[in-house]
Amino acid sequence: MPSLEAYRRELDYSYAPGLFPSVEALENAPDRVRRLLISGKAGDNETVQRLSGLCAARHIRVETADKALSRLSGKENCYAAAVFEKRFDRLSDQGNHIMLHQTSDAGNMGTILRTALGFGYRDIAIVRPAVDVFHPHTVRASMGALFSLRVAEFESFDEYRAAYPGHALYPFMLTGSVGLNEAAANKTSPFCLIFGNEGSGLPEAFAGYGRAVRIPHSDRIDSLNLSIAAAIGMYTFAGERLYGTAE
Amino acid sequence: MPSLEAYRRELDYSYAPGLFPSVEALENAPDRVRRLLISGKAGDNETVQRLSGLCAARHIRVETADKALSRLSGKENCYAAAVFEKRFDRLSDQGNHIMLHQTSDAGNMGTILRTALGFGYRDIAIVRPAVDVFHPHTVRASMGALFSLRVAEFESFDEYRAAYPGHALYPFMLTGSVGLNEAAANKTSPFCLIFGNEGSGLPEAFAGYGRAVRIPHSDRIDSLNLSIAAAIGMYTFAGERLYGTAE
Repeated sequence: MPSLEAYRRELDYSYAPGLFPSVEALENAPDRVRRLLISGKAGDNETVQRLSGLCAARHIRVETADKALSRLSGKENCYAAAVFEKRFDRLSDQGNHIMLHQTSDAGNMGTILRTALGFGYRDIAIVRPAVDVFHPHTVRASMGALFSLRVAEFESFDEYRAAYPGHALYPFMLTGSVGLNEAAANKTSPFCLIFGNEGSGLPEAFAGYGRAVRIPHSDRIDSLNLSIAAAIGMYTFAGERLYGTAE
Repeated sequence: MPSLEAYRRELDYSYAPGLFPSVEALENAPDRVRRLLISGKAGDNETVQRLSGLCAARHIRVETADKALSRLSGKENCYAAAVFEKRFDRLSDQGNHIMLHQTSDAGNMGTILRTALGFGYRDIAIVRPAVDVFHPHTVRASMGALFSLRVAEFESFDEYRAAYPGHALYPFMLTGSVGLNEAAANKTSPFCLIFGNEGSGLPEAFAGYGRAVRIPHSDRIDSLNLSIAAAIGMYTFAGERLYGTAE
């Protein structure tokens, strides 16, 4: 492997910066991890030992690389980074999908990935142009959730639809015709929850796709933050699957 | 008024950076606005005209101050900032409260303020030590929602409780004994939803205060992001008040 470069979208590998995201990479996607960079300042705590053990078991090379870490992460105190292969997946045909349509902020995308995993969603469809799901900032914001998800990118909504024609569509729009709780109570599975861009939302055409969902809120705010709206939507649609039969 | 200083917690005034937060300040808390700073680069668009009109109607001084704006906001493209008086409020005795217990991140706090306003909550109790609710970063993240809310700070939970002994308490904890949907379906009003610190959550003692609430999520993640958990909690507790009788 050549020497490590600063991250660019064109590279076929990226970095999972931080101890916790590196653990997630090694535990959930070990076949994609090329090596582990570790800081001399990381010490010998429990997490570092866990990382070393995971690498030893998988024959993954560990390198002390303080300079590379601070250069790649842009931070003084980045104690580890897993170097991993970028790869898109085929989504599940049976599972529910989360579509991120032209998301522009890495923090939002990462937070949504983490929340999705927390609520039992494993399949993420991204429609371009969108922020890079493999960018170290996205990976960090996801806290490594990326490594437990299937992710696919599409040139357009139509390209997604051709590949997965069977999912019931629920675009989230300020002008949605049905309230969230009602939509979730009468949902058809498998479904695809669709969330638009931070500034511009979804194009008007999406009002005609499936059932357009509105999260009711007071007119004192223009809209909810994207990662907030996505979380409330994913939580409410998870329903009894999340709660089980106990409640 | 003396010349403007970089923001510090000790000052009795702060800045609402951005065109939109400045509009919110002038519309919802005009008595607290001392002056409006505007950039020569702001041009003459609709929002700028609205700001000028609001200031004229209220006899608030408008100042072109590009250098001060870039210095105060730390950004190149900050087109306006309302200079406003800091002030804490008495919370409503009848209204529901949102308690932020030792929140440490300005972005999280601002996002929670905005979401709270969106779901009809108007009363925010902050327990110290916490990030400064009046810091320009918090105000910006709230998109100016701060100016439509009552905010009070307390040295401790006990100090809050002595002032508002009647609210039903719902601390949100990973170890909460009741699931969110069940807690919300059987809620007692007025209530106080309590959210802990980003890293450490709430102290264990809170498990004994009122009904400790758990947001169910998969064990594939350690916890939800604070602003995400708060949003799901506030949305679910808003219930029929938010939806009206239509659903």
